[in-house]
Amino acid sequence: MTDQAHAQAARTPKMLIEEMNRTRTPQDTAAVWFLGQESVVIKGGDRIIYVDPYLSDELEQKAGIQRAYPAPLSPSDVGNADAVLITHEHDDHMDLTTISVIAKQNPCTIFVAPGCCHAAMREAGVAEDRLYAAECDRWKEYDGFRLKPIPAAHEELEETEHGHRYVGYMIDMNGVMIYHAGDTVVYPGLLERLQEQPIDIGMVPINGGDAFRRQDGIVGNMDFREAVKLASAAKFDLTIPLHYDVFAWNGERPGYFIDYCYEYDPYLKTKVMARTERMIYVKD
Amino acid sequence: MTDQAHAQAARTPKMLIEEMNRTRTPQDTAAVWFLGQESVVIKGGDRIIYVDPYLSDELEQKAGIQRAYPAPLSPSDVGNADAVLITHEHDDHMDLTTISVIAKQNPCTIFVAPGCCHAAMREAGVAEDRLYAAECDRWKEYDGFRLKPIPAAHEELEETEHGHRYVGYMIDMNGVMIYHAGDTVVYPGLLERLQEQPIDIGMVPINGGDAFRRQDGIVGNMDFREAVKLASAAKFDLTIPLHYDVFAWNGERPGYFIDYCYEYDPYLKTKVMARTERMIYVKD
Amino acid sequence: MTDQAHAQAARTPKMLIEEMNRTRTPQDTAAVWFLGQESVVIKGGDRIIYVDPYLSDELEQKAGIQRAYPAPLSPSDVGNADAVLITHEHDDHMDLTTISVIAKQNPCTIFVAPGCCHAAMREAGVAEDRLYAAECDRWKEYDGFRLKPIPAAHEELEETEHGHRYVGYMIDMNGVMIYHAGDTVVYPGLLERLQEQPIDIGMVPINGGDAFRRQDGIVGNMDFREAVKLASAAKFDLTIPLHYDVFAWNGERPGYFIDYCYEYDPYLKTKVMARTERMIYVKD
Repeated sequence: MTDQAHAQAARTPKMLIEEMNRTRTPQDTAAVWFLGQESVVIKGGDRIIYVDPYLSDELEQKAGIQRAYPAPLSPSDVGNADAVLITHEHDDHMDLTTISVIAKQNPCTIFVAPGCCHAAMREAGVAEDRLYAAECDRWKEYDGFRLKPIPAAHEELEETEHGHRYVGYMIDMNGVMIYHAGDTVVYPGLLERLQEQPIDIGMVPINGGDAFRRQDGIVGNMDFREAVKLASAAKFDLTIPLHYDVFAWNGERPGYFIDYCYEYDPYLKTKVMARTERMIYVKD
Repeated sequence: MTDQAHAQAARTPKMLIEEMNRTRTPQDTAAVWFLGQESVVIKGGDRIIYVDPYLSDELEQKAGIQRAYPAPLSPSDVGNADAVLITHEHDDHMDLTTISVIAKQNPCTIFVAPGCCHAAMREAGVAEDRLYAAECDRWKEYDGFRLKPIPAAHEELEETEHGHRYVGYMIDMNGVMIYHAGDTVVYPGLLERLQEQPIDIGMVPINGGDAFRRQDGIVGNMDFREAVKLASAAKFDLTIPLHYDVFAWNGERPGYFIDYCYEYDPYLKTKVMARTERMIYVKD
Repeated sequence: MTDQAHAQAARTPKMLIEEMNRTRTPQDTAAVWFLGQESVVIKGGDRIIYVDPYLSDELEQKAGIQRAYPAPLSPSDVGNADAVLITHEHDDHMDLTTISVIAKQNPCTIFVAPGCCHAAMREAGVAEDRLYAAECDRWKEYDGFRLKPIPAAHEELEETEHGHRYVGYMIDMNGVMIYHAGDTVVYPGLLERLQEQPIDIGMVPINGGDAFRRQDGIVGNMDFREAVKLASAAKFDLTIPLHYDVFAWNGERPGYFIDYCYEYDPYLKTKVMARTERMIYVKD
């Protein structure tokens, strides 16, 4: 294991941030970095978007739930976020420690989140004029990209006075269409929403859910089979599985996702991301 | 694969039936044969019980759904059933072709099934006085064993005017307590019901369910993770996974069940049955 | 995990030994207990044989190699061994700490091992007249069973002046023929040796081997695929996978073995043993 330890040690937060900053993504390309669970960084053109950055140990502090491995970045490393997208209020998605540090250090970063998250995010230090509501099913233009929040059912669709409580995001950026599902099962209407536009990169959870996790307060997502079938039906050009690695008791073996692809739709293109890996997507 | 073809050919229905008939199960022992899907045969003392015998190709005839391998017995081979237990009306559980032949050939065989199955079973030729209702949560004595039907939620608990639509069976036979779950998810109240008696052999589905199968009319069950957690919580002495092998599009890899056992509870005793295998259980 | 911890705690060495002692194995039956790695206990009639009992932490003391879980018995718990069979000199097979304690406490226990192990075993306290050489390919009668050592190739067949360095054992006991492969790959001649007698229970390693483990001094075995194919070709009635659980860096997922069975020969009967489980085998 010494080699791996070495490899990990060798890839410092500084190196990772520098890689993000120096990576060139000409028109019709995108780069994705995987930070664990559903935390990803997406770069297209000169814009960098963080989705659900879980870089603290909020859940360990609050509930004794340890990460399987340390966050690859500290919140204070994040000086390059043009936007932070939050899918819902759970601590491993809306990580207020991380959000607070990013907001303080980067006055220009904008934040998009379901309306019901706004109060907590403002309290964490996000400025009113930097905070945008994730209004589902409509495109909204931002500087350098546009977003269409997609309702997510975690495990149920829930509407609050501020709109959907759980969302995913359709991100149209630099000529590449990216879907980040957030935490969701496959609900009636999801596939139809996805079919409204050709999706280049689809990122979906695979950890599933069950009666016993539910009993422990762990809300479920689609499992690896549903993820494969959804990706196949929605015709994602490339599918990235998410949400399997950071919490041992709520994870999944990514190999099950891969094996089911090979059984169900061996032409489906997938990419299992290594920790902190950068993937470059070239459209056409 | 010639060796396997040979192995299979070598084990004719006649040999299988003769094995059932000659197997001795002294007090506090039971023998179980696996016929695929949720079809099992249980022997204790001199009594033989068939649960959900799916020995025809009903589903292929009706819906073009082929078996992954031929039924190991034909309905006409079954001359040794003291009782046939049916868990619910789906064709791969209440197989009317099989039931019809068994009833005609064996006037003494009794049938136990949810009340809502009775009309169809009578029409298939089961005599009124041989047909018993699966009344949930109460023990009923039969000749040589007693039964307590347990509500099953496939995927929901459903009560009809005739009682529960889906059931499993607690079978107390020859000093051995056996639970056959039928088709069910883990619902609130199931574990408590199981904990009411120490269970020697627990047989549970592992095929799960998902939005896409549901869309195709395939109702779901617990998955391999829930099966392991249920078995561990209910403290089954031995757990046999079921419902993964006969229909390719609704199956599961039994190895996933085994690997999850080793991750979650490596002291949990399990038995993955080979096709047509006989397992002998010795209680202490 | 409290339930499992409970389950484990509830099964003390005393309970395990008492279970061995009280288990009845009438003619044509055998009982097998799994103690981890390749350590098994076999009972037939009133004879109890330990194979490769690794009950100490020799490898942790010598090389810092930790067990994945504590040995289920201490050497001093073993007061019921009629015979101890050793397959080869590696510390997790010929565990001199365990052998020494057993020899001291049980003057009647006999030991069978390759000749090249004898000096070390004598030094550990095994009496000259209790120590027998594992001479390959010939049956030898002992009190209550007979043995035929089978050459093992770990990874090579090696002959010393004292005969084969690595062996497995064919154990004919109480009407049941049991093959414990020891540490071996499938070498030319092995299958033919196995086909010389019908084998009821075949126990085979599944951990494989590779260039990197070899570099670390870890000699390889057959892998799960070879184990399945060997079992199918040799027509074991029941196959038990061994050697996957005690050392994390030299283990295997038993589910892979199960899944490969279902792919290659779904009629092959197998049993993955839970930790400390007792399995009772009934020969027709």
